[in-house]
Amino acid sequence: MKPSIPKGTRDFSPSEMVKRNFIFDTIRNVYQRYGYQQIETPAMENLSTLEGKYGEEGDKLLFRILNSGIDFSNLEIQNSKLKLSDFTEKGLRYDLTVPFARYVVQHQNEITFPFKRFQIQPVWRADRPQKGRYREFYQCDADVIGSESLLNEVELIRIIGDVFSQFKIKVDIRLNNRKILSGIAEVIGAKEKIIDITVAIDKLDKTGIEKVNEELKTKGLSDQSVKQLQPILLLSGSSSEKLASLKKILAGSETGMKGIEEMENIFSDLIQCGLPADECEITMDLTLARGLNYYTGAIIEVKVSDRRSQFTSSICGGGRYDDLTGIFGLPNVSGVGISFGADRIYDVLDEINGFPDLTSASTKILFVNFGKEESMHCLKLLKQLRIAGINAELFPDTAKMKKQMAYADDKKIPFVALVGSEEMKTGAIAIKNMTSGEQTKMSIDELMKILKSSD
Amino acid sequence: MKPSIPKGTRDFSPSEMVKRNFIFDTIRNVYQRYGYQQIETPAMENLSTLEGKYGEEGDKLLFRILNSGIDFSNLEIQNSKLKLSDFTEKGLRYDLTVPFARYVVQHQNEITFPFKRFQIQPVWRADRPQKGRYREFYQCDADVIGSESLLNEVELIRIIGDVFSQFKIKVDIRLNNRKILSGIAEVIGAKEKIIDITVAIDKLDKTGIEKVNEELKTKGLSDQSVKQLQPILLLSGSSSEKLASLKKILAGSETGMKGIEEMENIFSDLIQCGLPADECEITMDLTLARGLNYYTGAIIEVKVSDRRSQFTSSICGGGRYDDLTGIFGLPNVSGVGISFGADRIYDVLDEINGFPDLTSASTKILFVNFGKEESMHCLKLLKQLRIAGINAELFPDTAKMKKQMAYADDKKIPFVALVGSEEMKTGAIAIKNMTSGEQTKMSIDELMKILKSSD
Repeated sequence: MKPSIPKGTRDFSPSEMVKRNFIFDTIRNVYQRYGYQQIETPAMENLSTLEGKYGEEGDKLLFRILNSGIDFSNLEIQNSKLKLSDFTEKGLRYDLTVPFARYVVQHQNEITFPFKRFQIQPVWRADRPQKGRYREFYQCDADVIGSESLLNEVELIRIIGDVFSQFKIKVDIRLNNRKILSGIAEVIGAKEKIIDITVAIDKLDKTGIEKVNEELKTKGLSDQSVKQLQPILLLSGSSSEKLASLKKILAGSETGMKGIEEMENIFSDLIQCGLPADECEITMDLTLARGLNYYTGAIIEVKVSDRRSQFTSSICGGGRYDDLTGIFGLPNVSGVGISFGADRIYDVLDEINGFPDLTSASTKILFVNFGKEESMHCLKLLKQLRIAGINAELFPDTAKMKKQMAYADDKKIPFVALVGSEEMKTGAIAIKNMTSGEQTKMSIDELMKILKSSD
Repeated sequence: MKPSIPKGTRDFSPSEMVKRNFIFDTIRNVYQRYGYQQIETPAMENLSTLEGKYGEEGDKLLFRILNSGIDFSNLEIQNSKLKLSDFTEKGLRYDLTVPFARYVVQHQNEITFPFKRFQIQPVWRADRPQKGRYREFYQCDADVIGSESLLNEVELIRIIGDVFSQFKIKVDIRLNNRKILSGIAEVIGAKEKIIDITVAIDKLDKTGIEKVNEELKTKGLSDQSVKQLQPILLLSGSSSEKLASLKKILAGSETGMKGIEEMENIFSDLIQCGLPADECEITMDLTLARGLNYYTGAIIEVKVSDRRSQFTSSICGGGRYDDLTGIFGLPNVSGVGISFGADRIYDVLDEINGFPDLTSASTKILFVNFGKEESMHCLKLLKQLRIAGINAELFPDTAKMKKQMAYADDKKIPFVALVGSEEMKTGAIAIKNMTSGEQTKMSIDELMKILKSSD
């Protein structure tokens, strides 16, 4: 019997955990810099909270939990058919947005609005596992709820800039606005086809304009509409040039013009207060729809533009939704948020060799175990080091020197202390630098100084 | 439709999260001080990993996950009976110990032994929810695997001391040894009744000696055995006095004498290298069994002895198990570990008002929003503050002053900045200290100095 874990799930080893924590800590610190506060929600939610929020496809991907205490041998079966709802009422959360909406409604009387919250927790999806796609993975979300100000969008884009500048990953921040997409549908006379249009446009990058046009016709768009759409799809130039052209095209659509105004405001604010960072390019991308129909204003997507990376998927995204809490009985509360894909950021950093030196959490010095008496002496020294904030350990067994040294090597411990009877008498400690191989004697105070400064 | 969460689960608000993070960070830092390395395992494990490890009672408390993609309307039902295993193969982890044992076996070729790992993750149990008992709660475990040295026990007890001394909670660390319990069963001629004896003894504190004797007789212990047990149950005095008496009583049992020797060693090491902290008392407790039959050596349990607390349950526990990985095909690997109950520690700290000031993660200053132009100016100032590592935010809407001030109050933001047209001209910033109500003008550099020092 060889033990294993469910497909699509992962164990994280100590060296992976250190890198993962670096990612989570960085994102958390930036969120806090901007006044976002952390919450957590349970892994399990009632199915009534989750179902119907992610479309039919999403519902199929929910992990359902069996009610406890069911006696399956005595389960009544009506018409020899089982009703799923008879034995499952809970599911694992599928994302952090729906639980957050539920949280806001449930705790609305305790919350001060605008509520700026962040949440870093795992989510579960019964997706077909494949490279880079897991059944358990972390999301790192920040949302403001209860404020319609575009300053929130501006600050969220600055957060994206700060995060990737800390990771030293060059990215493309692409912006669009759902109102512009609605305006386009309106002016080409296909207002009710907005979803089909965004779904088709979303594929422009991958499939090319011919395929997109074909799809639009299949979906029932008139030749006239498709024709009118062409100049829009082919818009080129800088973001401000695109916006200028769009202004003429969408002049007849109030919604469309509102979308352009929002976009112009966000761009101009970002320029005025200083663009996020050199690592980021911010562009308008009319083909950006993100398939999520709850977005009502800004749509944000981030892709790696770093030449060192082959990574093409989105690593961060978000947008504004005007009525997310409505489904739980609290209508007309506007929100805007972003989500970082921690697992994808991990893959990119690994690919470009971008993780910094992350040894601060690991052991700084190993004391070799020479026997009972020496160990007792070492335990006292360890106490002093630990009080000084230094991570230190004693090899627990009186094993062969080779084994103890191999342990230090494998754990990448930079210094080894050798305290034998000689050292116990004089109070000097023989220290071996594991990188240089150099060996020197020093007092505990000198040792502490070296270990402190090596941090 | 009022949204809710499954019973026994909880949402954590920003103020609760800050306190919870304080607990997790403290425990994690101490673990790292002692050379323990973090791992994480998936929330879901295969049922074959979980089942049969927690006794019949435990199996009933497992949360089982429905296989995805099952068509329940077409499920074949044999003899009108359902087989649970036909539609559930995964469960949520019940503790961190069994997943760790599975991890060690699965990754044995990548691990350097002795392997000192810690793990801080939630676990799920379909227990009847009640005050202080949840269906989702965090465990904070540290274990060493692959070393039989008692130095591990000594270091783990020092960890317990360090953690509670950082929490400033006075605790009683109680020690026992499974080998002593085995020895007792042996010398009273009831070797095969060891489990019944430990279960009964475990209740001595609560039910008294009469009830314990009754229970032992019901379980089939002879009058002679029960009689022989009496002086052992009534042993009093200091730990060393108890051990001295036990030495005579258990002289005929090799196992018992080994247990005494281990206990003496641990006590003497702890005294030699300095007992953990003033806050801890360490005593031998013969009635301590912890009901867990996988313990084979030391048994550790920690209770609050702080006079300010009414808390009586155990808040930390652990012990040595000689063959935990055997069930997964890797026999004879000894391990020893402890586990902190984070939720219980939270309750105690709350009860005794023991949380320190935890504002370091929260916003230090709120900039009042006076309008478009002022906001743009503030965003530039915010950038400077954030680069200096100061958590700062701008109210996103141009709302009434009263609302903006109430927001700062509710979020416990200590300073509010008022930058109007006047301040924009002179470069001075009007700062209101929200505690004293005092208002002063200063430059951005002076402001940064104050905010930095208020940390």
